[in-house]
Amino acid sequence: MRVSTRGEVDAFIVMDVMTRAAELEAEGRQIIHMEVGQPGTPAPKAARDKLSRALETESLGYSLTVGLPELREGIAKLYDRWYGVDLDPERVIVTSGSSAGFLLSFASLFDAGDRVGIGAPGYPSYLQILKAMDLEPVVLETAEARRFQPAPEDIRGVGLDGLMVASPGNPSGTMLSKPALTELVEATQAEGTALISDEIYHGLHYEERAHTALEITDDTYVINSFSKYFSMTGWRVGWMVVPEDHVRRVERLAQHMFICAPTASQVVACGALEAMDELEESRAVYARNRALLLKGLPKAGFGHIAPPDGGFYIYADVSGLTEDSRAFAREILEEAGVAVTPGLDFDKARGLRTLRFSYAGATEDIEEGLLRLEKFMARRGALVD
Amino acid sequence: MRVSTRGEVDAFIVMDVMTRAAELEAEGRQIIHMEVGQPGTPAPKAARDKLSRALETESLGYSLTVGLPELREGIAKLYDRWYGVDLDPERVIVTSGSSAGFLLSFASLFDAGDRVGIGAPGYPSYLQILKAMDLEPVVLETAEARRFQPAPEDIRGVGLDGLMVASPGNPSGTMLSKPALTELVEATQAEGTALISDEIYHGLHYEERAHTALEITDDTYVINSFSKYFSMTGWRVGWMVVPEDHVRRVERLAQHMFICAPTASQVVACGALEAMDELEESRAVYARNRALLLKGLPKAGFGHIAPPDGGFYIYADVSGLTEDSRAFAREILEEAGVAVTPGLDFDKARGLRTLRFSYAGATEDIEEGLLRLEKFMARRGALVD
Repeated sequence: MRVSTRGEVDAFIVMDVMTRAAELEAEGRQIIHMEVGQPGTPAPKAARDKLSRALETESLGYSLTVGLPELREGIAKLYDRWYGVDLDPERVIVTSGSSAGFLLSFASLFDAGDRVGIGAPGYPSYLQILKAMDLEPVVLETAEARRFQPAPEDIRGVGLDGLMVASPGNPSGTMLSKPALTELVEATQAEGTALISDEIYHGLHYEERAHTALEITDDTYVINSFSKYFSMTGWRVGWMVVPEDHVRRVERLAQHMFICAPTASQVVACGALEAMDELEESRAVYARNRALLLKGLPKAGFGHIAPPDGGFYIYADVSGLTEDSRAFAREILEEAGVAVTPGLDFDKARGLRTLRFSYAGATEDIEEGLLRLEKFMARRGALVD
Repeated sequence: MRVSTRGEVDAFIVMDVMTRAAELEAEGRQIIHMEVGQPGTPAPKAARDKLSRALETESLGYSLTVGLPELREGIAKLYDRWYGVDLDPERVIVTSGSSAGFLLSFASLFDAGDRVGIGAPGYPSYLQILKAMDLEPVVLETAEARRFQPAPEDIRGVGLDGLMVASPGNPSGTMLSKPALTELVEATQAEGTALISDEIYHGLHYEERAHTALEITDDTYVINSFSKYFSMTGWRVGWMVVPEDHVRRVERLAQHMFICAPTASQVVACGALEAMDELEESRAVYARNRALLLKGLPKAGFGHIAPPDGGFYIYADVSGLTEDSRAFAREILEEAGVAVTPGLDFDKARGLRTLRFSYAGATEDIEEGLLRLEKFMARRGALVD
């Protein structure tokens, strides 16, 4: 049977790690998971209880394509609470996770062959979804000195049709300051480049809160999700905020491409918006985990790390330790029993010399992971010396 | 802000009807809904109970991209139960509804500019999703004598890269017999045209069971869903069956485009597969509704209807009654308080002379709807005469 060219996308390299970790666990070994990009906690209890009640009383059939009115209202209020931004709920479109937000944004904004800038290191699926939609990803190598974020000079004169930006970033956890984001917004507008701001890690900050692009302009697509801060990965529910005159066009696309986001998941999301206390407790756990890693990783020998402003990842430069992060991640898994992600998924050019550590898990796992990494590195250092 | 050309898709015309029906209901009128494409029942009770338990005990985070192993096994067994087909669960990929199945199929099989045949009348989103993915929909006007299904002569020498087929069809409810489906499979294979079989209404038949394309060939993509027979529209969970050597490529695309189908919905789907008694009761309700309409619609004056072999729709030719189905549907809604779907959504060329009646609702609503339609048509006839 025939196949397409655009369908030839890459697998996640971290899948090798996850498959091998599962094999080791099947053999009885206990593995510490610092490779996963999801909270160890379920959706907040109050949110799950809300669904339990709805299961008895509601049919949970299709919702409106743009989402449950109560949920759109709740999301709009979040912008006031978090950023002091007054947002019309009519501009909120509930989606099946941020994944659907990317597909809808790209369909609404770009035609086949259009060029869209993405920063490296960055979330691997940007590149692959662009490819699957016959768009041309333009990889912008970002500088550590610019917090691994695209800068105005990266896009000026490049003729980009669009630019994806993520602050806090994955894998870096680094943020754009408000002045840096403002400069970037101005540069895209001067170039006629459509800006898409992926804000999926918002809410997870450890010093200053991340800035939404909506603080600077209404002329942008913002993508967000209940997966990370709200601890709802498997529910596949997120949202977009689009310019007022784009709402109907994105709604029409969503009618055909998705019909609606899962209704039950939208009910849980409504509940999650009212369970901020539990979510703030989880954030306190991540903050403890982050502090442990910021102290423990350099002690173990991973001294060159990006400033993890938000999210739940630490991105480490391991160029002094290996020239092949994939082999190194395998070695760490086999020897130390700690699963970590090789940087290749995020940066094809430089990722052979980087690793990503996730601290979304339980604190006792982070503590145990650090002990194991320390022992492993000491042993390895002794062998190398 | 810039927009794409491919994002200029059409809204569903039925939305006019639904919006106006909601307005009338807000004014206090009671409307009979025969426009909706979803069961009036929630997911089966045993399935909802299964989720209630999982909400207490499981984290419901990301599942494997291809779906929960238990669900893939259960779906594979359904092929034995329903068709006597021995299906390897490894060929089953769980998706976020059939919508995701279309997006994945088109990305896996076709590049920008490729031409994909779709029958008219047919499900409106095929055309719009193809457009949103920069593909060229080729509309094949099907004949009532061929049960509104594409025939080998429609595709021979047309140079199609792909063909979508749906049996039972929406809006027609008509099926391809096994010989007709076999001929079509052979014709597509001779032409090098990839066949995608949308089997979303399978399980809902009133005489002979519909045939899956997998009874005839493994060299096809089959798309199905838990929305219709399993009464789970809002849960957004469905599946694909693809050739063995396409599994990894579709999995890779799904990793990036969707990550996974909603995990909670997958749990409900596992429960639904074990709740066939309740689902067969619903089918008995549809069978009663269908029988009422087959008798009552001609009596009311809608005599020219397609044979509704399956699904829960009846497609009526109203060319003797109107030249504008959109205005006619509005008239029926205002005068009779019955919401029906104008054919324009399904067939741009001939849909001004057709209506779709859904019988997915409760039997008492169908009875009341028929009474109203009969009175409305009698009054209208008296005015016209």
